[in-house]
Order: sequence, then C-alpha cells, then structure tokens
Amino acid sequence: MVSETKVNFLSKPKLNNPVFVEGLPGIGYIGRNAAGYLVDEIGAVKFAELFSPHFPPVVLLDPQKNGTIVGLKNEFYYYKAKSKDERDLIILIGDSQSMDPQGHYIIADVILDTIEMFGVKEMITIGGFGTGELTEGSSKVFGAAILPEKIKTFEKMGVQFKDTNIGQIIGASGLLISLGHQRGIQGVCLMGETSGLLLSDPKSTEAVLDVLTKYLNIKLDMSKIEKRVKEIEKMIEKIENLQTKLAGHTKEHDEPLGYIG
Amino acid sequence: MVSETKVNFLSKPKLNNPVFVEGLPGIGYIGRNAAGYLVDEIGAVKFAELFSPHFPPVVLLDPQKNGTIVGLKNEFYYYKAKSKDERDLIILIGDSQSMDPQGHYIIADVILDTIEMFGVKEMITIGGFGTGELTEGSSKVFGAAILPEKIKTFEKMGVQFKDTNIGQIIGASGLLISLGHQRGIQGVCLMGETSGLLLSDPKSTEAVLDVLTKYLNIKLDMSKIEKRVKEIEKMIEKIENLQTKLAGHTKEHDEPLGYIG
Amino acid sequence: MVSETKVNFLSKPKLNNPVFVEGLPGIGYIGRNAAGYLVDEIGAVKFAELFSPHFPPVVLLDPQKNGTIVGLKNEFYYYKAKSKDERDLIILIGDSQSMDPQGHYIIADVILDTIEMFGVKEMITIGGFGTGELTEGSSKVFGAAILPEKIKTFEKMGVQFKDTNIGQIIGASGLLISLGHQRGIQGVCLMGETSGLLLSDPKSTEAVLDVLTKYLNIKLDMSKIEKRVKEIEKMIEKIENLQTKLAGHTKEHDEPLGYIG
Amino acid sequence: MVSETKVNFLSKPKLNNPVFVEGLPGIGYIGRNAAGYLVDEIGAVKFAELFSPHFPPVVLLDPQKNGTIVGLKNEFYYYKAKSKDERDLIILIGDSQSMDPQGHYIIADVILDTIEMFGVKEMITIGGFGTGELTEGSSKVFGAAILPEKIKTFEKMGVQFKDTNIGQIIGASGLLISLGHQRGIQGVCLMGETSGLLLSDPKSTEAVLDVLTKYLNIKLDMSKIEKRVKEIEKMIEKIENLQTKLAGHTKEHDEPLGYIG
Repeated sequence: MVSETKVNFLSKPKLNNPVFVEGLPGIGYIGRNAAGYLVDEIGAVKFAELFSPHFPPVVLLDPQKNGTIVGLKNEFYYYKAKSKDERDLIILIGDSQSMDPQGHYIIADVILDTIEMFGVKEMITIGGFGTGELTEGSSKVFGAAILPEKIKTFEKMGVQFKDTNIGQIIGASGLLISLGHQRGIQGVCLMGETSGLLLSDPKSTEAVLDVLTKYLNIKLDMSKIEKRVKEIEKMIEKIENLQTKLAGHTKEHDEPLGYIG
Repeated sequence: MVSETKVNFLSKPKLNNPVFVEGLPGIGYIGRNAAGYLVDEIGAVKFAELFSPHFPPVVLLDPQKNGTIVGLKNEFYYYKAKSKDERDLIILIGDSQSMDPQGHYIIADVILDTIEMFGVKEMITIGGFGTGELTEGSSKVFGAAILPEKIKTFEKMGVQFKDTNIGQIIGASGLLISLGHQRGIQGVCLMGETSGLLLSDPKSTEAVLDVLTKYLNIKLDMSKIEKRVKEIEKMIEKIENLQTKLAGHTKEHDEPLGYIG
Repeated sequence: MVSETKVNFLSKPKLNNPVFVEGLPGIGYIGRNAAGYLVDEIGAVKFAELFSPHFPPVVLLDPQKNGTIVGLKNEFYYYKAKSKDERDLIILIGDSQSMDPQGHYIIADVILDTIEMFGVKEMITIGGFGTGELTEGSSKVFGAAILPEKIKTFEKMGVQFKDTNIGQIIGASGLLISLGHQRGIQGVCLMGETSGLLLSDPKSTEAVLDVLTKYLNIKLDMSKIEKRVKEIEKMIEKIENLQTKLAGHTKEHDEPLGYIG
Repeated sequence: MVSETKVNFLSKPKLNNPVFVEGLPGIGYIGRNAAGYLVDEIGAVKFAELFSPHFPPVVLLDPQKNGTIVGLKNEFYYYKAKSKDERDLIILIGDSQSMDPQGHYIIADVILDTIEMFGVKEMITIGGFGTGELTEGSSKVFGAAILPEKIKTFEKMGVQFKDTNIGQIIGASGLLISLGHQRGIQGVCLMGETSGLLLSDPKSTEAVLDVLTKYLNIKLDMSKIEKRVKEIEKMIEKIENLQTKLAGHTKEHDEPLGYIG
C-alpha cells in the first residue's frame, strides 16, 4: 500500500451548492475552535476522514478517555439547510496541519479534490492573527480574499481588510483560497485578532463565529463557547507540547523525556 | 532500481492466526530489548528483513565482530506455538526507525502489508515512557489502545491505562496501532516506565515482558535479561552517539569528527 | 490531483529564436528588480504562470490592494522584437524560489522544459553578489558562464569574470546555466555587486540592466528605476520577514507571532 | 522532464571483470583525493557523469578558469588493464554527496545500477576516519567489510580491522558496501586515519593509495601527491565554506553574504 494523503468516506451526502468552511489548528486555535463549535451546535454529521503521511508521526491519547489512542486526522462534516435562508455546508476540522512545507500543498489539493466532488463553489477559511499583545476589549475580525466583490461583501459585515498589517497567511487557510481560486472556487479568509500568547481565545473565536453565522444565516447559541473552548484546551496543550518537542528534532524518537517508542 | 522501503523474504512460514509483537528502538530501548530477548529465548526464526531509504544513511560496525559492516534493517521473526495454550507469533525487532516524519508512515504501512500476508489480526507494540527521574522500585507498565475491550483485558493484567500523563506516542509503536486499526488489525501499546536518562533499563524491560508473556501464555527464563540488556548497550551507545551527531546536521558528511565519507 | 510544479499558459506566443532572461528573488533582489523593470518598461506580456509545492506554503497580501491575496508564483513574459536590431525575449520574474534543495532542481527543469517549447537557445540569468560591505561608487557587474566565447563576449562589455572571489552560485541563476548547458542552451549569469545588507540596490540593478540592454540592443529609460525599486521594497520586506520566520521552523503553523493558520 | 538522479554516458567501454573504486568527498577528502590521483596517474578515461537533485542546489566556479561554471556531478572513469597482473577498473570521483539522508540511498542505488551494467563483482570504497587530534607519524589504514575472507585479505596487507573504535560509516562508502552486498557485489571500505581538522591530508591519502595499488597490482608514482592534494584544496575550501553556509539553512537563497540568486 502506498502511503499517501487520502480521504476515507463514511457516506457520500447529496448536497445543494454547499459552502465550505475550514477550521484547522493555527495560532490561538481560532479556526479549529470556531469550526468545531459550529459542528457541535448545528449537529453537523461526519462523512469523511483525511489521513496524511505529512502529519506528525504520532498518535494522541484522548484526555477524556484514559488510554484511548486517537490517530491524527482531518474530518469532513456536512450540514443540510433546515430552511431556505440557510445553505448546505461542508465543514473541515482536524488535529493537525502538514509537518513539512510541500505537504501543505498536497493536503490542500486533496481537500479541494474532495469538496469539488460535492460541487463547492464558495469557501470560508478561518484563522487567527497574532498581535503579540494581551489586549482587553472587542476582538477585530480581519479578512483577505482574491475577488473584490468578496471583500466588499465582508467589509459591509464589519470585517477589516484595510490597514491590517498582515503580510502573509501561512498554511491551509491561505493556500486553500489561492489554489481554490485556480479551480474556480472563490473564498474569503476570516482571521480573528488574538494575542497569540494563549492556547485559545474564546472571545476572538466568538467574534469570528458572529461574522460566519451572520453570513450563513445560521442562528447559534454562543452561551457554551467559553466552556467548550476551555475543554478543548486540554487537548491542545498536549499537542503544543508535542510540537515544541518535535520542532527541533528531525529524529523525534531519541527524545530524552516523555518519549514513547 | 527504485530506492524504496522493501521487505526481502528468507522464507514464507505458514502461521495460524499469529499475534504480531513489535519492538523497535525508542526511549530506554524497552521495546527493542524486550522483543529481542523474547526472540532469543523462545528461539524465534528470522524470515524477512525490511530495508528503507528512510533509515539514516549509515552502516554500523558490529562491536562483537571487528570491522564487520551491518546494514540498518528491521527483522521479522516467527515462532510456531508449541502447545495449544500458546499462539503463533511474528516478532519485529530492528536497529532503527525512520529518520524523517513521512518515512514513519511509509515504514508502518510496509510493516502492516507484511503482517497482513500472514493473517495477523492482533498486535502488541512495545515502547517506553520516560519520566525524567531516576527512581527506585517496581516499574509500572502503561498501556494505550483503541478498543475498550483491549483496555479491559490488559487492565486486568495490571497495565495502567488511567492517569498516565501520556499525551502522545511518537513513532512506530503508536502509528502501527492507529494505521492497523484502519485495516482491522486491533492492538495494544505496552509502555515500560523508565527514567529515559539511561541507555537501557533491564527492570522495565522485564516488567513489560512479564505482561507480554502472561498474555501470550509463554514461559520465559528471565535470569539472563540483565546480562543481555547490558550486552546490547554497547551497540546502542554507538547508535546513540551517531544520532546525536546526525541530529543537528542535514549534511552529515561534513561532520568534523569520527566521520567517514 | 497530484501536487507538482506546473505551468499554466495564458497564451502560446510565436517567438523567433528568443533570448531567455531570468530574474528571481535573491540577494539584494538584483535579478528580480532588473527583470521586473525590463518587463514594465518594454511592455512585455505575461503568457504563463509557474506554481510549485516547493514554494513556501504561504500566500501574500498585496500591500497595494488591501486584503487581496496573491499566491506565490513565477511568471513568464514575452516581448516581440520591434526592429531587426532587437531580439524576441522570454522573461521570468517571480515571488519565490524553492524552499527545499531538491525543489530547486525540479523547478529549474520545469523552467527549461517551458523555454525549450519556444526554441530558446540562449539565456541570461541575473543575480547579485553580496560583498558584506556598504560601499560608495560604481557597481561592478560580475559574470559566470560555461562557454569561453560567452565569457569573451561579456568581458568586452565590461563584465568582470576574473578575480571575482565568487566560489559558487546558489539557486536558480546557476542551476539554469548548468542544467541548460546539458540541453544545449548556452547562457551567462550576470551578478550585480551589492552589499547584501539592504533589501534592494537600485544602483546595482541599473548596472546590470546597462549590460543586459546593451547586449540585447534595447533602449531603456532608466529614470524611474529608483522609484520602482523602492516600491517593490515594501513587498520584499514582508517576504523577508516571512523567510526569517520560516527559516528556523519546520512546523510553521505554530509560529507564536503574526501567524495566521 | 522529471528531475531524478541520472547517469549520462559518454561511452560504454567493454570491461573484463572490473574492480570498482569509489572516492567521493568526505572527512579529510581522503577518498576524493586518493581516487582522483589514481585517475590522473593511470590515465583513466571518463565515460559517464551522474547528476542528482539530491546534490546541493548550487554550481561551482572553477578557481583555475575564471568565471567558468561547473555543475556538481559524480564522474565514472574506466581503466583497461595493461598487463595480466592488472585488473580493469571503474573509478568514481565527484564534487558532492547527497544533501538529504534519503538521497544517499537513491544515489547509491544508481551507482550500483551503473556498475552492474559492466559486470562489477568487487568494490573498494575509500573514506577517512577523523581522530580529532593532529598527530605526527605514520597514518594507519582502517578497514570494514561484510565477508570474513575480505577482512583476512586486507588484514594481511596491514589494514587494521580490530580495535578501530569506529562505530559507523556515514554516507556512500558504507552504503555501497551494504547495498552492494545485497546484489552480490562484495567489497571493502578502506579508511585513512586523519585528524579531520584539516581540509586534506596527503600522508593519509598516500597510505590508502599504498594499500589500494598493492591490491590492484598497479604501480603509481607518488611523488606528485602532495602538490596535487594542495591544488585540490583550493576547490575544497570553497565547497567547505558553502557547506557551512548551507548547513543551518533550509532556505539557502536568503543567505545574507556572498549569496547570488
């Protein structure tokens, strides 16, 4: 069997012009937490799992279920519109992005292949922008896109595109917009302002979800967001520790402490 | 000839529903030493060798046989049950794991391809968990698995799955469980508690072997374990030194000391 | 879809024995700025774009157009000779070179495949040579080539080939000459002397353009070069910051500051 | 065109049971200098060149011929026996080994593919072993092999196989022996004792050549070896500087000094 990035389907839902929402791990876990909360609250259904040899060569132990191994993966969920105001959705969440630069391109292409199968023409990717400062008060939502009309639409909703001081977007959230554009899938990247100094940021997550749900005409109960984000932090903390360990090591199996071969 | 991870068979034994046991190098060399001792004591027979361009680009010189070159490899052994209480076994030991993250996935897939050929449905992978502290007394054995029934079975045998403080498993021992599960091969990862500060740990190795042999209904003479583990330490020391050298170098052939081009 | 280095054609111009000019990012951005200025001033027309998974896994935000995403790419332009003194040209500019060593070879081969389609037999690659010192006065232009007659031709135009203290050329400018030679495409690499301490160097850029346009019999208005180079500096600054960040990180998505996932 | 490790043949000599001698760059440049001197003195003829995307992405400027670009390559030479005491030879010299671990395996396999075409059954690889100390007096020659009869043969010639303190051999010299053995090509690795602190070591080079030529029944005038080795040092110095620069950089094109894009 060749080891390559692949998608295993649990089902193949029939969707009507779905919007694709991406929330993978990144700074402040804004994307991961926003998309994860959306999945939970609207009761989206998992229909596919993406595995990749470009993820770190590790498995996680679920902190909720003692001793239970969880393989790294990205997960596709779908949601069928419950009224004509809503839209069908495909939502991607996951534990990891690529470990190597080239893998980012490979995984983005596999994601685009998958959503093209369901006729996706529009996408919203979610990330965070780290300011490096712990500030109080309202969290801004920054945006980036290729088509001017996309920028106008989200500017009207309060998303800031000008004077953002953002020079580049690293990883899936940016690549999906750029590579998707080449395939005729248009998108916007929403980025929650966050310090980047904490493991998660419920306020920034909520700010991004406000924009997202307004655009999608979805009503979301935000009362549980702080609790949920804190729960997820436990898992994040372990992954973060792992990434710190792996960062300086090409040979991760001679790790002196806490390593398991 | 394409350079890829490949398995050369010395023979193709006929095995009856064999259990797969993996013991590759990792922290404290628990897995490597436990599986190696098992192979020696039960007289398991080598039937295949795995070679990979993802191993470090080196050859070892056998410290027992002066000037004799040994290429890095993983080795498959089989054992035929001698009574109806025992089970047929396939045991994997080796000198090395992958040097690059992606190679871990590739090698794990080749290992799974190989054991699937012999009808393996169950596996036990062995590793160590480094506490960072040199402690006296009995060595705990920690466990991780995917199926709840696996966890129950090994909990009854004294393996600790709860409150282990283990966040992740790096390398083959974890990946084989996770990728094996996708193919319908169910397993458990047994991890010997060890300081992680020494090259090997006979006590922890013995503690893991106790669980393993009890589960497999195999009787093992443990009297030689300390001696054997110490013998293997000489080889390990050389590999460890090498890994330290290679760790900070993408270009390993401009190594200033002890390098041979 | 397989993720590989590929060229998307906007048109396929008919060209008569064109000269290929390469100017990708490097020290002092001499090549990028010289070729970019040439493209602008002679009104060369873009006909193809090269994308590669070996570029960094990022997208840029255009500092001129707030919030507008620009994917990393290399761009092929053509210019049709306006008199019989001139030559048809293919000019390559871009935002990035490969991030990994092997990718340099892969991208160079794709560039050569592309220009071979248009019958290119001659090429000029442009780079900078960093002296490490901020010096006043005229900028020298250094040269390197394989064929002695190439060296003679450009020596007559004041390019210095002897006593240059240049030991090697890293990246596309050198590889294209060497790999092109294997395919029967002959070339010269022109390198503007620059401190290497500043983001750009209008004087060195102009010195290289002087040689280039004299050889190509093209008249170029140099009055705007300082202004243009300064404009481009804004974009370069963002890329430079990014590269500094990415340099020490294999996992770029756990970047603490200014990262967007 | 796919970028892969490939061999371009200038001619296909008919050889009778040739011995393969490898001398690629390594510590003290013992292998490179010994094999290069042999090629020059016996008048061996180049018949093939090996190119690889696993070499560093650079070209060299020949210090003897100002401004002349030399692409990195490995070169195959042949020598036809001039008497029945001699043997036909294939000699491999070159500027570089692989930059990445996996590339070492790929290049070794391509080298073995090539020599198999000429019926090679026996090989001698040459390297250095760095002691870390500048010592006076005679240079020892260390050896490593797989077959006991090889060890015996070279032990009789004064090569030291026991108590060498050599734990491993990094790169081509070791891999060729190990991977060659799998194909039925038997070999020995000869390693000249050297400090590893200097760019080259004429005395150690001569000591290795003494063993090599005695085994091959070739008479070699050693009077020019010091002069030749010193000439080659100029080229080596540039490559060494380059490797030091490249060592800490995955993105070698943002090198601040002496970089040319």
